[in-house]
Formats: sequence, structure tokens, C-alpha cells
Amino acid sequence: MSDNIHDVIIIGAGISGTSAAKLLHEEGLDVLLLEARDRVGGRTYTARAPSFKYVDLGGSYIGPTQNRILRMAKDLGVETYRVNVKERTIFQTGGPSTKLVFQGSVPNYYNPFVVMDLNNVCKVMDECAAMVPPAAPWDCPKAAEWDKMTVKEWIDKICWTKTAKEWTIILTRLIYAAEPEEISLLYFFWYTQSGKGIMRLVSTDNGGQERKFIGGSQTISEKIIERIGKDKIKFNSPVVKVEQNTDDGVIIITTASGEQFKTNHAISAVAPCLLGRMTFDPPLPPKKIQLIQRVPMGSAVKSHLYYKRTFWREKNFNGMAVTGGLVSVALDDTKPDGSCPCIIGLTVGEPARIMTTWTKEKRKKRLAEFYAEIFESDEANHPIEYIDNDWLSEEYSGGCYVGVMPPGVLTSFGSVIRTPHGCVHFAGTETATEWAGYMEGAVQAGERAAREIMYAMGKINESEIWQSEPESLDVPALPFEESLIEKHIPSIPGFLRFLSLSTLIVAGAAILMRNRSIIEQVKNKLTDLF
Amino acid sequence: MSDNIHDVIIIGAGISGTSAAKLLHEEGLDVLLLEARDRVGGRTYTARAPSFKYVDLGGSYIGPTQNRILRMAKDLGVETYRVNVKERTIFQTGGPSTKLVFQGSVPNYYNPFVVMDLNNVCKVMDECAAMVPPAAPWDCPKAAEWDKMTVKEWIDKICWTKTAKEWTIILTRLIYAAEPEEISLLYFFWYTQSGKGIMRLVSTDNGGQERKFIGGSQTISEKIIERIGKDKIKFNSPVVKVEQNTDDGVIIITTASGEQFKTNHAISAVAPCLLGRMTFDPPLPPKKIQLIQRVPMGSAVKSHLYYKRTFWREKNFNGMAVTGGLVSVALDDTKPDGSCPCIIGLTVGEPARIMTTWTKEKRKKRLAEFYAEIFESDEANHPIEYIDNDWLSEEYSGGCYVGVMPPGVLTSFGSVIRTPHGCVHFAGTETATEWAGYMEGAVQAGERAAREIMYAMGKINESEIWQSEPESLDVPALPFEESLIEKHIPSIPGFLRFLSLSTLIVAGAAILMRNRSIIEQVKNKLTDLF
Repeated sequence: MSDNIHDVIIIGAGISGTSAAKLLHEEGLDVLLLEARDRVGGRTYTARAPSFKYVDLGGSYIGPTQNRILRMAKDLGVETYRVNVKERTIFQTGGPSTKLVFQGSVPNYYNPFVVMDLNNVCKVMDECAAMVPPAAPWDCPKAAEWDKMTVKEWIDKICWTKTAKEWTIILTRLIYAAEPEEISLLYFFWYTQSGKGIMRLVSTDNGGQERKFIGGSQTISEKIIERIGKDKIKFNSPVVKVEQNTDDGVIIITTASGEQFKTNHAISAVAPCLLGRMTFDPPLPPKKIQLIQRVPMGSAVKSHLYYKRTFWREKNFNGMAVTGGLVSVALDDTKPDGSCPCIIGLTVGEPARIMTTWTKEKRKKRLAEFYAEIFESDEANHPIEYIDNDWLSEEYSGGCYVGVMPPGVLTSFGSVIRTPHGCVHFAGTETATEWAGYMEGAVQAGERAAREIMYAMGKINESEIWQSEPESLDVPALPFEESLIEKHIPSIPGFLRFLSLSTLIVAGAAILMRNRSIIEQVKNKLTDLF
Repeated sequence: MSDNIHDVIIIGAGISGTSAAKLLHEEGLDVLLLEARDRVGGRTYTARAPSFKYVDLGGSYIGPTQNRILRMAKDLGVETYRVNVKERTIFQTGGPSTKLVFQGSVPNYYNPFVVMDLNNVCKVMDECAAMVPPAAPWDCPKAAEWDKMTVKEWIDKICWTKTAKEWTIILTRLIYAAEPEEISLLYFFWYTQSGKGIMRLVSTDNGGQERKFIGGSQTISEKIIERIGKDKIKFNSPVVKVEQNTDDGVIIITTASGEQFKTNHAISAVAPCLLGRMTFDPPLPPKKIQLIQRVPMGSAVKSHLYYKRTFWREKNFNGMAVTGGLVSVALDDTKPDGSCPCIIGLTVGEPARIMTTWTKEKRKKRLAEFYAEIFESDEANHPIEYIDNDWLSEEYSGGCYVGVMPPGVLTSFGSVIRTPHGCVHFAGTETATEWAGYMEGAVQAGERAAREIMYAMGKINESEIWQSEPESLDVPALPFEESLIEKHIPSIPGFLRFLSLSTLIVAGAAILMRNRSIIEQVKNKLTDLF
């Protein structure tokens, strides 16, 4: 047993767990990582083969304002490259008639109502996001109201045009790998804030999808292990029990094989839902027991089709397509030197739940057909290699990308998400306050949990637990410039008010809608009265 | 190891697991129950002491149409008694001014709008519930629409009066131990159907709360164990691993202490969220992995205040109070012979999440104060004994009463809830199609899973797996008689149409609401156009 005593034991060797381990190791502490799988990386997972060199089957993209993961990568000697967005991008919310092809980062819808509406959705999203305190979203003045609503309800309320509605549904699916009706509006605004606003969150250039790691994102965790020592990790060791002696503070951690490890300080660096796999003694507090049942993982299948040539570039497409179909987003995944031409596709939310029941052969065929249509080339039908990962089937992640909160969870249970349980601290990207759900959030959470322990050990002050990060010099964040028109563009209701058409509309609407709608209003009045 | 081979192994010794065990034992099979706790009963848990004799700290009530649990109780010699509802009942949705005291089962609201509105809510609830196929709610023609909505959205839409709205919120909280915004409307209608309609579901007399078991509900599981033999159960044995050899069909089940058991047929009789505590090899299918993250348990604290006298009866109160306050429902829990005067209180949903953070002393004091106000007597402030159970803190239930589905879960994942995983079958009240969430559902699910195995063994035909149950002769279901007025009472919009006031209303509303509402309508038109 004496070999099994460590200063700190960390459960889970994803980016959050390994980031914590690195910091504690640098402090001179003896850490041990217990990992359920036979590999590090968690939701970052890089496959390697001579034909495609390397490919990220999980989390992959980084960009400006994600300064912690950029600093970590630099420290470890992992370089980044920019995703190709030179040529034209495709947006297609519905059938072929909704296809929009454009250069640059802003779609050029011609219909002024659609432009007004899209502009308004983004503006309101950012305004609302700015109202949510990152570390305590439950304290937002609108918390109760927003946490009782689904994102779908909000979309139905705020969008006036079908295009803006479909676009916002796709965006939601894309960001959360879940459907709008599954997500609390408060959580949605908090997450938007955590990702530095909607433009930063969804953009390729200058946003969260600007870059990838050369060699793949799993390299981060791998290089950390190389640095701290391979003896600091035990693979195939899913934790089943965490016992704490409340008198002497000794924690005994048992893995599925019955092996036991002792420590005085532990970090859980797994997704909230995976905490339910462990028995705690003393048990987790009631709110935590119920919280971890209420943060389901998103549904994502990530696929890669390899081709002989980057045929899409020849048609002046950059490979990026945001669609309401089989893949919510496709991107060019060709290596920076032009080798291994590849389109990656993210199938997320409901489409992923359908795809998970398909054979690999069927997935490959359907995706190829989809790309042939979108990129207008039969060459898409002839991939030379196919590789995908169905994250729904990963028992030790539970899904991807992130634990998502349905209505009511954040206000009723959210406040206990980071509260230590005795000497067990909680990391994992879901516990982050900046870029939660991303690799950046994983680093923030892992380092914060590590510093909670350093504080408990008397090595740092309490005020040092939470640290801001200086901006990366290599990947600076540029402002998103609004044109004068964009800034002053009204919303549709604002536009209608501006036109002073209100009286006319009252009369017109009364005729158009008959009484049904008016009755709705009388109803609201009655609700106030009785 | 030879001692550890059994015909069937059942995980979980609640009512569902023990019901399955009883049936298989009667078939001559050698069963073994593996129970995580040191007791049987699961979410039924009866405390015993000389002062209060016995008290149900968990599931407790039964009533007409719950024929399986009534048959089971009769077979085991467990008798029932009727809950006292002789005197006057109290309804209080909000502050003291909303207090309504009435005799019988229907509240006598004087405001005709409230009567119309309450009547309409119940009518629509039952009409919609009747559209949902009990075994396949995802096949309901309205499934997609309803599963994208929360119950809160529906309440806001359908209720015209504040009273009906508050009443429906309390009702929802009471039935699910969760808040309306946490629940899918499709799940809500399915559950209503499963409970035989809203009146049957919520009524005391002639409904789900008509009776209790003499000796307590845990007696059911205890008597089953007495009958099949105490050697057929292993306590303190939480299962951590279920390995199936797909070649020879042998299942190896490992408990937290490392003990292993072998079988060819297994039943999991635990709540869906608890399946995440076990590692399956081969793993559960992707949709099941994600389903079990999406069925969080309700939040309930059940409390009992014992008094010297049934002081409330002296004031012509029957002890039943349905409120929007600290307890959603209080009921008389005095023993049938008049001994142990007691008020039980169910604190559910958000109030339970607050109460879980209180000390026992604070709970007792606040509850006593609450009853003093509600039952208009200072005697309530002087209980002679207090006992409660906070189900949020029960690691091996995860909450009470039942796993509840947020929007999107039933249509995307629901269909796999009962699908066997190799030779592992799924019971537990959440998998029932009649009275899901109740003891009746637990029996139905347990016996159905047992018969799946009997079919797999060639002992019965496939058509015999699902069985209907003859009506109990002792507890027959009476129809709920609607008075002629109730049957023909219109909804508020119907009433307004009837009055032909529509034209007047259009004009009036246009003035009253200004343009905001009308703009909403133009917005909907625009949504159709673009």
C-alpha cells in the first residue's frame, strides 16, 4: 500500500486533469492520474495512421481569447495552424433553394428583413450574455425568468423570419450538440458569455474555430505526461469509490479492479454526469447528487472523408458549409502543407442520434452523397478513406462536446458545481467560467482546482486561486468590426415602429388574424386579473 | 465461485426487483437479488418505532386501478386502509387570501372564469393524454410538437386565470416532484395517461392516494423476501460491473466489494440514472448511454409531525391541504384506529431543494409554523415527534419519486428504455406503461421483465410477456361522475366566442394593448413568409 500514497490524486486524464497534474508537478508535488481508458486526452482523441498522418476525432479547434490553452501548447512545443477559409463558404438552412454562397465571414442575405432579423438575434444574444455573471449565472437579475425557458421558446419569440429561426436552430445545435428545446436559455446566455460573445464563439477566422494543433489536440495531454513522467498515470483504472476519513482527511480511492490509492487531496476532472459512476463516502451533498443527473452530454458524431484532391477548392469553395442537414458544419481538414485532402463533418444533436444507429458503411455513403450535393461535385462520392467517432457510444465521456443544462438546472443546482466535497475538488471544462465546454475551459478548470489544493496546503493565498491569463501574442484577438449600417440596423419590430405604421397594423392585423390573436391578449389581461 | 451461479440475478431489491424475484421463484428458478443498501424496498421505506408504530418515509399510497400491487399485497397478506378525507379540505395556491376550504373532492371556486378555466385544463389534459400510446409515446401524432415544449409553456398557453395557472403548477410539482419547466409536455401527457387520467392520478378518494398499507409499504418487499428465502438476497452489494460473454451468454456481475456472481439472465431493477453507476461490457448502446443521463429523479422531502391530538379534525379539517407553499400536499397520517395523530407533508420540487439545506430542527419548526397557519391552530406548533426523509440525499435512489424527462428525451431516446441489452433486461417503475412512477408500475415492470426471461427460457410464449390485470374486487375503480354543468362548461375562449363578443374584443383589445400584441401577430405572418 505504501507505493500507493500520493500528494494529490487526479481522476481523469483529459486536458483538465493533465493541466492540473502539470501545475501540481511543477510545484514539486507527487501526483497520480487515474484514467478509465487506455489513453489520455478524454474528449480530445487523435488517431494516427500513415495514410492521414493524424486526425482529431474529438475536440480540435482553438482560437483567439483562448489564452490558457495557447500558453499551454506553446510551453509544450505544440504549434497551431489556421483552418482554410480562403474560398467561398456555404450556408444552407433547408433545401437547395436556401443555399447561400459567399466570400468572407458574413452571409450576404439580400432580403432586408432577414438581415435585420439575423443582426437583431446576434445583438440580443450578446446583450443578454453580457448580463450573466460568468462565475455565478444564478445571480443574473433575469436568471429565474431565463432558466424557466428553453432556447427554442426564445427563438420562436425573437425571430421574425424563417431564415433567422433556422439559422439560430443550426447555430444552437452546432455549439451544444443538442437541440434548442433541450437547453435552458440562461445556460445558453451564460455559455455565450463564457465563449466571449456569439461572433467569437462561432467564427472560424478570429473565433473559436480559427486554428488547429499540428499533430492533433491529444498531443497536449500526451506531452504533459511525457513531461511529468509516465509513472504518474495509471490507465484502465475507472474509479468506483472515493472514501474520505473526515477525522484525519485521508482519502482512499478504489478502482474497478479493486486497487486502492491513498491521498489527502483529490481532483475529479471528469464530466459531471460521470461522477455518478463513483460511490462517495461520505456521499455527495443532496444538491450535487441531483445536479450530476441533470447535465447530460451532447450528441456528436465527427466524421472525416479523405479524397485524392481538394476538389472543392477548385470550385472556389473553402470546404466550410453550415447546414440544417446531415452535418451541421463541414470544414476543410486538409493538412497545412496540402496533403491528405479531407472534409470533416460534425453531425450533432438529433441527426447524430439517428446516425449512431447506422453502420459505418452507411454513414460514409450518406456523407459522401451529402457533400456531392453541397459542393456540387461527384468527386465527393469517391472518398479514399473514411474515419469517424461516435461520441454517444463512449461510456467514459457519455457524449460530446459538453454537459448541457436543461431548464431549471442552473438556478436550482448550478451553484454547487465547483464546491469541494471535503478534500475532493472539481475540475473538468463544465466547471470553467471562461470557454466552458472547450479545451480552454478544461485548462482553466484544471489549474483552478490545482490551485485550490495549493491554497489548502498553504502554498498560495486564497486570492491566487482564480487567475486571469495574459493575451497570447501569437494569436491575438481582433475586434469584430461592425459596419455603420450593422450597428444601427433596427430589429423588425423597431423598424415597424420607426415607420409609424402601428395604427394601420392594428386595423390590418385585426382583419388578417381574425379574433384568435386578440383573444390571446384578453387572456393575458385575465391572467393578471384572476 | 460455484455458490455464486444463479438462474437469474436481479439488481435492486425495490418493489420492481422483488416482484420479478417472486414470479421467477414461483416458476421454480433460482434467483439472487443484489441490493446496494442494507434493506429492501428501494423508494419504499418504512421506519418503525414504539412511539409511531410505523411510518412510510417513501412511496406509500395506492388506489383503484392499481390492480397489480393490490393483488400482490393481498397475496402477501398485507391489508390496506383508507386515508381520512371526511372533513374539510384546504386549497391555498398563494397567500392567505387564496385560501379555499371545502367539503368533498371538488374545490368550490365562486369565480366563474376560474371554474371554466380549471375545468378546461383538466379536460384538455385528459384529451391529450388519451392521444398518447402508453407503450410508445414517441408514436403519438403530436409527439414531436409536445416533446419540444415544457409543461410551463403549456400552462402559460392554456390557462387564462391566475388561479388555474397556480393550481396547475402545484399539481405538476405534486405529481412529479419537479417544476413545470423541467418536464416535457409529451412526457406529462404520457404520465397522465399511464396514471389513468388526471382525476384518478391526483384524487385521494377513488384515486391514487385513496389508501395506504397497514404496516407500511416496505412490508411488500419484506414479505416477498420472507417467502422466497433470506438466502436469495445479498445486501450492501452495489453492482459496479456487468460483463456478458457474447459467445456463451454467461453474465459476470461484480459488486463494489469485488465479489462476483454468474448467471445467464439478469434484470436491472433500478432507476435509469442509476444504470450509469455500472460499467457494462459490452457497453450499453449509444442511445441508452445518453438516455440514462437524461432522466433525472424528482426532488422530494417527506416529513411527519406527530401530535397529541388530531386537533385539525376538531376544526372540521381532514388534514388535507394542497398549497403553493412549503408543503405541496399535507395529509392526515393518523393510524386507522385513531392512534399516533400525524400530519405528513410532501415538500417537492424547488421547495425541497431549499429544504435539503436546512437542519432537521429548522425543518420541524418551519413545518409546524406552516401547519399552524394553514390549520388555524397553535397546537400545530407543538409536535411531540418529528421524522422526515430527504430523498435528494439518497445516493442509491438519486431522488424521489421518479425519473422525469425534460424536453426532447422521450422522442429522441425513449424508445430504448426497455430494450434488453443482450441477456440483461430492464425493470423499474420508469419502464412501466401503467402507473409509471408508482408501486403499481414497479410491479408491472418487474413481472414483465421476469416474463421476458421466462420467454427467453422457452417457458412461455412471446404473447404472454405483457399481461393485463383483472380489476381488484376489494378496491374497485368508480367512474368520476361529471355533473351536467361540468360536462358542458365551456373554456374561456369558447365562452367568449359563445357571447359573440369577438368584434367588440378586437376593438377593445387594440386600444388596451396598444400595438405590442398586434406586432406579435404580424411577426408570425412574417415567419411564414420568409
